Amino acid sequence: MARPLIDCDRKQRIVDALKTSSFDALVCGSASDVLLLTGYWPVIAASIAVFTSDGDVQIILPEDEVELAEKTSAAKLNPYKPTDLATLKTPIEALADPLRDLTSRLKLSKARIGLPLNQDMQPSSYAATVDFRCSLPCVIRELHPQAKHLACDDFIADLQSRKTARELDLMRTAADVCESGFAKAVESIQVGEREANVAAAVQAAFEGCPKAEALHRSYGFFFCMSGPNSALASAAYARTRERKIAAGDLVMIHANTCADGYWTDVTRTYTAENSSKQQEEMRSAINEARTAALRSIRCGVAACDVDKAARDVMTSHGFGKAFRHSTGHGVGFAAANPNARPRIHPASPDILDLGMTFNLEPAAYFDGYGGMRHCDVVAVTSTGATVLTDF
Amino acid sequence: MARPLIDCDRKQRIVDALKTSSFDALVCGSASDVLLLTGYWPVIAASIAVFTSDGDVQIILPEDEVELAEKTSAAKLNPYKPTDLATLKTPIEALADPLRDLTSRLKLSKARIGLPLNQDMQPSSYAATVDFRCSLPCVIRELHPQAKHLACDDFIADLQSRKTARELDLMRTAADVCESGFAKAVESIQVGEREANVAAAVQAAFEGCPKAEALHRSYGFFFCMSGPNSALASAAYARTRERKIAAGDLVMIHANTCADGYWTDVTRTYTAENSSKQQEEMRSAINEARTAALRSIRCGVAACDVDKAARDVMTSHGFGKAFRHSTGHGVGFAAANPNARPRIHPASPDILDLGMTFNLEPAAYFDGYGGMRHCDVVAVTSTGATVLTDF
Repeated sequence: MARPLIDCDRKQRIVDALKTSSFDALVCGSASDVLLLTGYWPVIAASIAVFTSDGDVQIILPEDEVELAEKTSAAKLNPYKPTDLATLKTPIEALADPLRDLTSRLKLSKARIGLPLNQDMQPSSYAATVDFRCSLPCVIRELHPQAKHLACDDFIADLQSRKTARELDLMRTAADVCESGFAKAVESIQVGEREANVAAAVQAAFEGCPKAEALHRSYGFFFCMSGPNSALASAAYARTRERKIAAGDLVMIHANTCADGYWTDVTRTYTAENSSKQQEEMRSAINEARTAALRSIRCGVAACDVDKAARDVMTSHGFGKAFRHSTGHGVGFAAANPNARPRIHPASPDILDLGMTFNLEPAAYFDGYGGMRHCDVVAVTSTGATVLTDF
Repeated sequence: MARPLIDCDRKQRIVDALKTSSFDALVCGSASDVLLLTGYWPVIAASIAVFTSDGDVQIILPEDEVELAEKTSAAKLNPYKPTDLATLKTPIEALADPLRDLTSRLKLSKARIGLPLNQDMQPSSYAATVDFRCSLPCVIRELHPQAKHLACDDFIADLQSRKTARELDLMRTAADVCESGFAKAVESIQVGEREANVAAAVQAAFEGCPKAEALHRSYGFFFCMSGPNSALASAAYARTRERKIAAGDLVMIHANTCADGYWTDVTRTYTAENSSKQQEEMRSAINEARTAALRSIRCGVAACDVDKAARDVMTSHGFGKAFRHSTGHGVGFAAANPNARPRIHPASPDILDLGMTFNLEPAAYFDGYGGMRHCDVVAVTSTGATVLTDF
């Protein structure tokens, strides 16, 4: 794989940010935070990343994840045995010893330690994953009662909003692999077919995609919502049901897919057989809103103005009320988190910056009839925007 | 659907357990805890369940999950608007007001409130889910500084270990739907085929299964590991790779699937074309170990003795060292959590009881060659054990 193992740019950005911060070190356990700090996307999320202000980056991780971590991270690895046949240990019990050893070696006993303490959203890294709840700050407090424990949630969220060249490269690969699912959509959407079967077909096409060979972990979630069910996609989540597709239905395919920890957020809406005039008007408005939003994107622009660009078009076409949610939110480290930066929302305080990645999802929903949404992932470039999901 | 909406047995068990506990009420935010207390399996896990010692059960939940919750829970629903176009709110900000209202109405301002505080494993309820970290206990502390905040982790884990008749019924449905994926395995496993394509085929068969019509949310994860990769399945996680299946390979299919919040944990191992003598010996030992473990299961038996029953057989066949992990762990509310009760482990202090559900996964792994595992989900009955994944 041509992709460089070490993301020097990412490491430098964190070191630089730490210099002007109130932290001597960061200690993070959530999978997407470990990914940011080390390049490694943990599987069962029983890993801890430690990043010091002088650029020492280390991971405490279960020994059965070492092989994977070595392939994607240049951090020093501190493996631990999560369990054995002699004793029963919880992940936090198994972690406590190596965490004490590492943090003592790094002289953090009186340091200002940044810990994620507040509520966040985490993308799914496996069928079941560790939830540390309050245990990680508690253990750090016990190990180093003289250290200062400070919330680093905002610090992490800010760093995650702007991607490096390597991270953008992985997001492009994620989009390429995701496309293989959507390439199967038109063929799979047939009148009389169950939503569950359509979702299964696009999911299988995605999972079998040979482009995933460039990745260590490629997986994702595809959903199909037809007719009135597509209007329910204005919710914060998608859900495939058992409904059979009828002629003239709007049929929405939504996907969140992952390439080694970097996520996509993509929606396309099809019509089963012929489009009606109203559907064509919806499609035309959404396309125009997307174009207006794309044209408005530039470093230094307020995120709320990108929302306004899309919303004004939808309103001018009579779809203002039907466009119920914000135009977008940060995507990459997060799969579907409306609070990920930049928030492309009327009340957003965020300012666009180089390398920021987010979705644009102009949409119109009519209860009982259906919904149409077109959701792309875009990145802010030096000259404007590029669409990563350009298919 | 014939399944009763109200699980009176579950409610009574919690009320009874609270009577002899140190809690006046439980306030839980993790998806599997909300499921236990209310019957509702939250989607993005931004829901809070409140259960008082006099049996008042309520859920604070995003308004776009009300439709789903009404179908699976008899709890009183307190919907909140997670976001709108006028303001940007995090889930915990959106939750704070309804949480204050509800807990004040329930007179919890000076109560002994049980909160899950320690590390746990959570099964995946959506592509991205809320991680409350320390925020839920912090908010409760701010709202009710005079209340006592006590860890209820063990209390919840104990209740989750024993299933009610209704929960067992859902676990049987989960097993039936899961079977549809495995039914496709033999046909999909072909010499020269990539692991990713095999996993995609069994996943699609699972997703299209018409039996899922009885459920509101049916989804899951299928993995394929062939040849030397199947030996790596002794890890705490499964991973599908791009390897092409060769003649004589062991080919392992592993699945964790979900039926309205109740999980399966199933593994079957096939051979690509003809089995070798060693493979037949492995299969025979594993079958015998499974039978011995099943025969040892009965209310009142020590979980470590079930492990011993399986382990002794593996050892007598010369596979003692190759059987690297414990014989099983609790399954149902958890997908793949080695610490879920009962732990079928040599060091387990757990005693089997009626309605306990767990996996039995005798296995033999040889690095560089391959691994074989047969993993079933079983339930403790009044007369012994029943296999829920009897396919």
